[in-house]
Amino acid sequence: MEITLKREAFSSTLQNINSVVDKSTTKPILSNFVIRTIEGNNADVEFSSTDYELSLVELVPAEIKEQGSICVNAKKVFDIVKELQSEDVNIRSTEQLWIHITCGTSETRLPSVEVGLYPQTVLEELPQSMTITVDDLKRCIDMTLFAAITNESRRNLMGVCLRSTGEQQTRWLSTDGHRLAQIVKSVNDLAVGEDQEVIVPRKALTEVRRVAELFGESVNITFDDRVMQFSGGKISFKTRLIEGKFPNCDPIIPKDNTLEVLVNREKFINSLRIVSSISTEKLRPVKLIVSQGTLKLESEKADYGEVVDEMEIGYEGESFQIGFNSRYLLDVLVVIESENVKLECKNSMSPTIIKSPEDESFLSVIMPLRVEW
Amino acid sequence: MEITLKREAFSSTLQNINSVVDKSTTKPILSNFVIRTIEGNNADVEFSSTDYELSLVELVPAEIKEQGSICVNAKKVFDIVKELQSEDVNIRSTEQLWIHITCGTSETRLPSVEVGLYPQTVLEELPQSMTITVDDLKRCIDMTLFAAITNESRRNLMGVCLRSTGEQQTRWLSTDGHRLAQIVKSVNDLAVGEDQEVIVPRKALTEVRRVAELFGESVNITFDDRVMQFSGGKISFKTRLIEGKFPNCDPIIPKDNTLEVLVNREKFINSLRIVSSISTEKLRPVKLIVSQGTLKLESEKADYGEVVDEMEIGYEGESFQIGFNSRYLLDVLVVIESENVKLECKNSMSPTIIKSPEDESFLSVIMPLRVEW
Repeated sequence: MEITLKREAFSSTLQNINSVVDKSTTKPILSNFVIRTIEGNNADVEFSSTDYELSLVELVPAEIKEQGSICVNAKKVFDIVKELQSEDVNIRSTEQLWIHITCGTSETRLPSVEVGLYPQTVLEELPQSMTITVDDLKRCIDMTLFAAITNESRRNLMGVCLRSTGEQQTRWLSTDGHRLAQIVKSVNDLAVGEDQEVIVPRKALTEVRRVAELFGESVNITFDDRVMQFSGGKISFKTRLIEGKFPNCDPIIPKDNTLEVLVNREKFINSLRIVSSISTEKLRPVKLIVSQGTLKLESEKADYGEVVDEMEIGYEGESFQIGFNSRYLLDVLVVIESENVKLECKNSMSPTIIKSPEDESFLSVIMPLRVEW
Repeated sequence: MEITLKREAFSSTLQNINSVVDKSTTKPILSNFVIRTIEGNNADVEFSSTDYELSLVELVPAEIKEQGSICVNAKKVFDIVKELQSEDVNIRSTEQLWIHITCGTSETRLPSVEVGLYPQTVLEELPQSMTITVDDLKRCIDMTLFAAITNESRRNLMGVCLRSTGEQQTRWLSTDGHRLAQIVKSVNDLAVGEDQEVIVPRKALTEVRRVAELFGESVNITFDDRVMQFSGGKISFKTRLIEGKFPNCDPIIPKDNTLEVLVNREKFINSLRIVSSISTEKLRPVKLIVSQGTLKLESEKADYGEVVDEMEIGYEGESFQIGFNSRYLLDVLVVIESENVKLECKNSMSPTIIKSPEDESFLSVIMPLRVEW
């Protein structure tokens, strides 16, 4: 193989490739990636990498001098390419599996691996499909991913549950058992069996979100019950779906919350940050004391001190107190985009809904915390 | 004590204070800092912190409502203050050793420590002194500190050796045994015994450099054989000096290097970064192959690959090869400010001088590396 490509395009693709590459050292073959020329396409080469769960395929404009393919260590190439200065990079493979990377006056020689040994990513025709604008997809990921579980304790919660709710509508839902986040979003060309749901893993959504701009205007999502593909522009991701059943969260979403509190979002964020700044715990408990027109926030009363703050709010009912992990409140407050947020609860121990007063498509539910101070 | 100060001034001083505070947990008292009002000064309060070796004293404008002093945990206060939003911060102590920090609507209550338990920093009148402009001081630190040793293996090399060379001149010198860096700089009001030298510890120079802009135009340096003080503007550092003798480096600086190589500094840096990018070793060995008009750089020939690069240089003599740790070359190349740099050596195994062709006041010597590839 011999190709020439622009250093900047090469470098930014390598960043995406490297993000997918397996960082653990248990499967050395997965530290590599593949560049191949494509039959019938003389303008692009295909970059691909996989960690078995998630695969990335990206087309990069290149001048192709000799067809072929190479498989080479992703980190090594990335480390070298980020130091290069000239505009064009030439990549050439020899029969002894050496890769020569030439840029300006510099020449690098790297060992490579038989392409056949690397697990190949094949994009498939999948039965279920939909199209979503990039902006909507970014929003769906931002509004749900924060509530998905990060550790391996419950595999079925390590992602976002995507479900068709009919009429060109999808519901994106995540929960870690202490909170949930749900957004309903219109899509186009929905061809998904009603009430069919799949669990999309965190890593796939994180990577899709990170490079979202590269998809262009909209993303085509296709899937069956094993895998899902995101395609748009010159980039495609293919991910295995999480096996297992996503819990039915509908009963957890309270329907009869009667107390409504309207809070300025930025002030609330600032207050939470101030009040939680003293805590040494990871989740930083905070007590909200809600009374007519006023919200008072209190940290724990600990040996190392305490912080209180207060702010004006829109609230007309009886006074009440409720405790939360401030981390959970902040996670949802920073993704909501409206000026104010609405908290809906029933009493000090009821699951609380947090949402924008202007947008019924999103809601988050947070379980309160018993606060004994 | 009760004072009111501007949040921004408070916050930036706390950053300096925190940088000095002892991060190890072996001496809990050193995790605190002190604020005190000063008799006869109603416009400022004094912040101070120490790790026994290095102390910082900074005056911060404040409105003083009640004289006094407090000693409180630096990290706690810093974590809280960085979240505050309003302009003014009020600090008040109670007789029960509680500190109340009020800002806008928020109020924090922190436990504090008896000020008497905290090691007090007293700025002294010291016999030796000089004045140096802030720009010159920054330069002296930048041009030498990189070559000082970072581990504890040889305590006397863990700093920069400062020596008066008479006639309002000082020499700043550092070495780690593999390289040295030396700069000669004019100072004002030099009142130091000739040939007197002291070793200033890394941490002191790092902190002085970090906040250099706060000194104003120039810094007054005073010292005896135990301690050194840096004062200017509203800020003072006091550091213990390193005991012990600094090695005599003069014999190491080669006087009869006949080979002179003139290299474009930026191109050299880029080439070194490219060629060293493949290495897995920390110090990244590189071979320089110097011939008339051309410098070729080669990485090790390792299983994981190799990189070569070349560039035009000013050199007229016989061809020769010499190896270096590229890390050492880069450390000095990035602090030199001229367009070109000059390498002076005698042969493949001779200590090499690196300096700016335009500035005789600075030089660095690097020991070559035996390169066997």
